Amino acid sequence: MASLVPVSDPADPRLADYVRLRDVNLRKSLEAEHGLFVAEGEKVIRRAVGAGHPVRSLLMARRWAEPLSDVLDGLDAPVYIADDATMEGLVGFQVHRGALASLERLPLPPVEAVLGDARRVLVLEDLVDHGNVGAIFRCAAALGVDAVVLSPRCADPLYRRSVKVSMGAVFAIPYARMTGRHDGLARLRGAGFTLLALTPDAAAVPLDKAPMTGRVALMLGSEGDGLSSHWIHEADEAVRIPMSPDAMSAGVDSLNVVAAAAIACHTLVGAADAP
Amino acid sequence: MASLVPVSDPADPRLADYVRLRDVNLRKSLEAEHGLFVAEGEKVIRRAVGAGHPVRSLLMARRWAEPLSDVLDGLDAPVYIADDATMEGLVGFQVHRGALASLERLPLPPVEAVLGDARRVLVLEDLVDHGNVGAIFRCAAALGVDAVVLSPRCADPLYRRSVKVSMGAVFAIPYARMTGRHDGLARLRGAGFTLLALTPDAAAVPLDKAPMTGRVALMLGSEGDGLSSHWIHEADEAVRIPMSPDAMSAGVDSLNVVAAAAIACHTLVGAADAP
Repeated sequence: MASLVPVSDPADPRLADYVRLRDVNLRKSLEAEHGLFVAEGEKVIRRAVGAGHPVRSLLMARRWAEPLSDVLDGLDAPVYIADDATMEGLVGFQVHRGALASLERLPLPPVEAVLGDARRVLVLEDLVDHGNVGAIFRCAAALGVDAVVLSPRCADPLYRRSVKVSMGAVFAIPYARMTGRHDGLARLRGAGFTLLALTPDAAAVPLDKAPMTGRVALMLGSEGDGLSSHWIHEADEAVRIPMSPDAMSAGVDSLNVVAAAAIACHTLVGAADAP
Repeated sequence: MASLVPVSDPADPRLADYVRLRDVNLRKSLEAEHGLFVAEGEKVIRRAVGAGHPVRSLLMARRWAEPLSDVLDGLDAPVYIADDATMEGLVGFQVHRGALASLERLPLPPVEAVLGDARRVLVLEDLVDHGNVGAIFRCAAALGVDAVVLSPRCADPLYRRSVKVSMGAVFAIPYARMTGRHDGLARLRGAGFTLLALTPDAAAVPLDKAPMTGRVALMLGSEGDGLSSHWIHEADEAVRIPMSPDAMSAGVDSLNVVAAAAIACHTLVGAADAP
């Protein structure tokens, strides 16, 4: 079992991986520079380690050493033990889940590698909100989507909040990031995928009437603006989730992107399972 | 048009309706005592006023007076004009949407009144998170659910965050709150509703195989624990959203309550529209 190292100074340089976890700009540059990410909570840490991410260090209240003893066994990394006040001073908020891990990122596979024999794929264009990215990964994994492909600028699935909201689903579903906005879609088409663009446009085909035989990639756009016109243009079909006529007249005729993704994943996977 | 009243002191007693908007305990008691709620942002304010809630006051940056002039026309309530710093000092955060309204709550109708000729109803048991309540109202309104019934302890749809996340859908869909946990369900059954309990239990019937002819009420449980065993017991049928076998072995085989609600509303309304 790894040795437990008590710490009490939030400015201790050995804890630099965990500094100011809610400071998005700081975290983005710090994590990119060191190739690390942070997982929070016993279950999510176990899933991250299980997915093969090398551990840089752990930081936890002493009460978590026992429940995490299976992870600590044979671990070749320091395990820092701190009280709640030290952790709060370091990360900038009260860590309810009591245990944090700093882990190494692994090289992302190329798009082709995650397509493999996938039949159902989500393609996310430029989502901004890490919580939404995490929630969509959770839906995709739970419902049985085979892989996720991200646009070059889509928010990071390994950002702390994405990982947390996904409940670790970011480690359970293969994903890749396109290197260019357009050759990425070309690769999907080249691999035989029908590209469906999800839009609120009333002229689009209802989702459950869309072509779903064979390989299907469903494209979801960003929170505010939806899919870019270029991506909609490149799709084989624009599809929509039918809205209530009453809602349309009341002006509340749209879903947030997570609700739309949930319905889309459910429909996509249900159609794949149909005889 | 209402007269515009410049204010610059966050402690001005005329602004007491807007104090510390993120202090949940303070807000709950303040709003209950005065029978008020707060709406945020131009569109949501317009929907709240349009739904017949009398305005106690408005508080906004001067730039919002023009876009909201249709609301201000003939308004018999003060319109306070403040700069960003004054608003931030008062409410406790930066108000990105720049306009707030304090409005009067209206008496909630009894359960029977919202059932009317509804065919599809959601029943929410003890949800805790206001954002989730708002997101579920948004799904229900957009997809065409006819009404929502809340358990006695379910989080308040008129709490600021619920209203905001719902994008004003809380004003577009009729809802009522049960006075007792059990007679509420009895009233639904008495009105001829089939009660479906949504659960992750693998032994439950897949949602799309559930009985959906006639009137259907779908029961959704709280974020952590799901539906109480008592409510599941009172249901006519326990139903589930099918999960991926891979996800079940990876331990990521559940959806958050908003994703589950989105899929459930879509299925419910689709079945109602089927010939």
